[in-house]
Amino acid sequence: MPLQRNKTPVPAGFKFSAVSADIKYKNRNDLALIYTERPATVSGAFTTNLVKAAPVVVTKRHLRTATARAILINSGNANACTGQRGINDALYLIKNLSKELGIANQDVLVSSTGVIGTPLPVERMKAKIPELINGLDTGSIEDVAEAIMTTDTFPKLTHTHFRKGKKLYTITGVAKGAGMIAPNMATMLSFVVTDLPVAGRALKLAVKEAVAETFNCITVDGDMSTNDMVIVMANGAAGGTVLDEQSRYFKNFKRSLTELMDTLARMIASDGEGATKLIIIRIKGAKSKSDARKAALTIANSPLVKTAIYGHDANWGRIMAALGRSGTRIKEGLISIRINNIEIVKNGIATGRDPEAGQSIKNSTEVFIDINLSSGPHHIRVYTCDLTEEYIRINAEYRT
Amino acid sequence: MPLQRNKTPVPAGFKFSAVSADIKYKNRNDLALIYTERPATVSGAFTTNLVKAAPVVVTKRHLRTATARAILINSGNANACTGQRGINDALYLIKNLSKELGIANQDVLVSSTGVIGTPLPVERMKAKIPELINGLDTGSIEDVAEAIMTTDTFPKLTHTHFRKGKKLYTITGVAKGAGMIAPNMATMLSFVVTDLPVAGRALKLAVKEAVAETFNCITVDGDMSTNDMVIVMANGAAGGTVLDEQSRYFKNFKRSLTELMDTLARMIASDGEGATKLIIIRIKGAKSKSDARKAALTIANSPLVKTAIYGHDANWGRIMAALGRSGTRIKEGLISIRINNIEIVKNGIATGRDPEAGQSIKNSTEVFIDINLSSGPHHIRVYTCDLTEEYIRINAEYRT
Repeated sequence: MPLQRNKTPVPAGFKFSAVSADIKYKNRNDLALIYTERPATVSGAFTTNLVKAAPVVVTKRHLRTATARAILINSGNANACTGQRGINDALYLIKNLSKELGIANQDVLVSSTGVIGTPLPVERMKAKIPELINGLDTGSIEDVAEAIMTTDTFPKLTHTHFRKGKKLYTITGVAKGAGMIAPNMATMLSFVVTDLPVAGRALKLAVKEAVAETFNCITVDGDMSTNDMVIVMANGAAGGTVLDEQSRYFKNFKRSLTELMDTLARMIASDGEGATKLIIIRIKGAKSKSDARKAALTIANSPLVKTAIYGHDANWGRIMAALGRSGTRIKEGLISIRINNIEIVKNGIATGRDPEAGQSIKNSTEVFIDINLSSGPHHIRVYTCDLTEEYIRINAEYRT
Repeated sequence: MPLQRNKTPVPAGFKFSAVSADIKYKNRNDLALIYTERPATVSGAFTTNLVKAAPVVVTKRHLRTATARAILINSGNANACTGQRGINDALYLIKNLSKELGIANQDVLVSSTGVIGTPLPVERMKAKIPELINGLDTGSIEDVAEAIMTTDTFPKLTHTHFRKGKKLYTITGVAKGAGMIAPNMATMLSFVVTDLPVAGRALKLAVKEAVAETFNCITVDGDMSTNDMVIVMANGAAGGTVLDEQSRYFKNFKRSLTELMDTLARMIASDGEGATKLIIIRIKGAKSKSDARKAALTIANSPLVKTAIYGHDANWGRIMAALGRSGTRIKEGLISIRINNIEIVKNGIATGRDPEAGQSIKNSTEVFIDINLSSGPHHIRVYTCDLTEEYIRINAEYRT
């Protein structure tokens, strides 16, 4: 069932394509299409930034029907802060695509990433729509994963399988995002497709829960994009009964979806702009989930903690200082901190093992910071990365 | 009345001294003393970080009497996250100093800055107390300003005069702090002395208001220290009636104190670790003071905005994105943004003048970002700096 050109297994009934529309750079694919041969149930999660890009506004509107056939995605231009013109441009592309595909406007979603504030080159993009549609027969999900990259250093895609009774379904997802990553709703672009038949309400519930545990638990620099979106399409092409939230398989489906999104989220954090190390922050013993989240994210966004990890310095003092200002209810004398399982703080006091932990940081590409607040039952896990000179270079030179 | 060795005018009745106690580095002054010949009214502002360094705990306790005679300050070691031992160490130094000076323990305040989590070398410090006290006859406020520096690239001190009737009073202040600067209460160390007689309650009020407008409006990296403190001592040595909050000069005094703290706050922001430019962010048209503050600080702490300024890029898209996630109530279509007085966004839409603004950033050491939200009467001004590779280098190599 997977299409010839896909190296990653993809669910039945989905097709993929990408072309070069010279949106920002010449000769690289920057316009991608995900298409389902039959209508799919669809659900999404979006940026909570009050400044919302045109594609976010339009896609949210088109999601009201809870079904879709196609997602048109471009990199190189965010179509954000472009006012009414931005909305009109998005609708213009949708109209042209839906006409060529012979589907309803409402069944097309759009997504953009790239520079803010410059109008989309809509005519160049429109001119490429026939080629994009022709490409569906030979295109692959790898093409899509590559076309949506901006400062990403590698394409991000993964798949998993989900068993329901005797049937095996496929869930496949792509993502992009390396800078401007911060939690609160979807924090980058991600598109997930499955051939499982899922009821609209069940899909909505599953997406909400999975996003909260995964994409909303990563941060690169605390900056939240105007364009973030996660879209999940379930077309039911592999057959079987429709999964709803009463189904005994519903919990398993949520787990599979969460695992898949977790893999993508982790890829995004590890590919943080300029990052040399993935940092996994695990808080336990918090008084509430919100306390755990505040503690983890304050540490994850602290430039001093991130630069210390880059410098192979198990600087627990900076971690304590971040905890103290996080708004989390803590008792200094109850806090224990481990880095790569080496205890550096016990009951608020240094153990003196930080040189050993520093050596361990140096030898690892993944650094685990485990904190026990010993104040309650709540926990969380957040992914981030270190902060390096390369982050500065990338972001100081992005437009100039 | 100013002491011989002070280049900066200092108020009557205050003496200064600094010595080298080899706290972190050898052969640099790292232990300083500010002493008033007669008891001073005193007030302070402190970090709101829940992890409070021992000197913060002890000094807050000693401030209950609202009078003081001496402040003992060290750099090189923060005496933070040192548990009961840290408290004992601070009290031990106080006991030895007060004994030598012949004053009450309660009249000595302590302040520390530097590495977190390492016990103070108290015996080395204690041994230097006689030399420190002897130095009061020849020492200067410049010595103090230099001794309290950590990663600061220049000492920070300033003075102003305050006229009450026919009398002229002097207010002189020093400060330190280059990284780990974030608002919420005092955000670094600053010590301000004046020979004006001020009532305890009036001083407290004036300090609170002045700190809110100045030290609480700067940020370098969003990280809040465990040690931040501002102490203001008024010894009345220049004579005259005691100023209280009913005095017709009270407003003028607050203004003078605010101006002095503003100068110090600006020095701190311009000396942000690795900074090449001071950034002055002015928000107007906000619905509330809190809205204005959130907007300004979110922009000021945004790594993407800070790296853009470093790269001479008038990247208003990043400013809009920061505004959108700040929690401030905004309407995208009402926002106008100027950089160095060049309008780059008008009613939410780009004017196309960002290349011109970028050129202006390149040619300035001070960059003004003026934002009109057109949604209300509230405004704020915040100082910050750009984010450079040098910040990363300083903080990745601080301990290693």
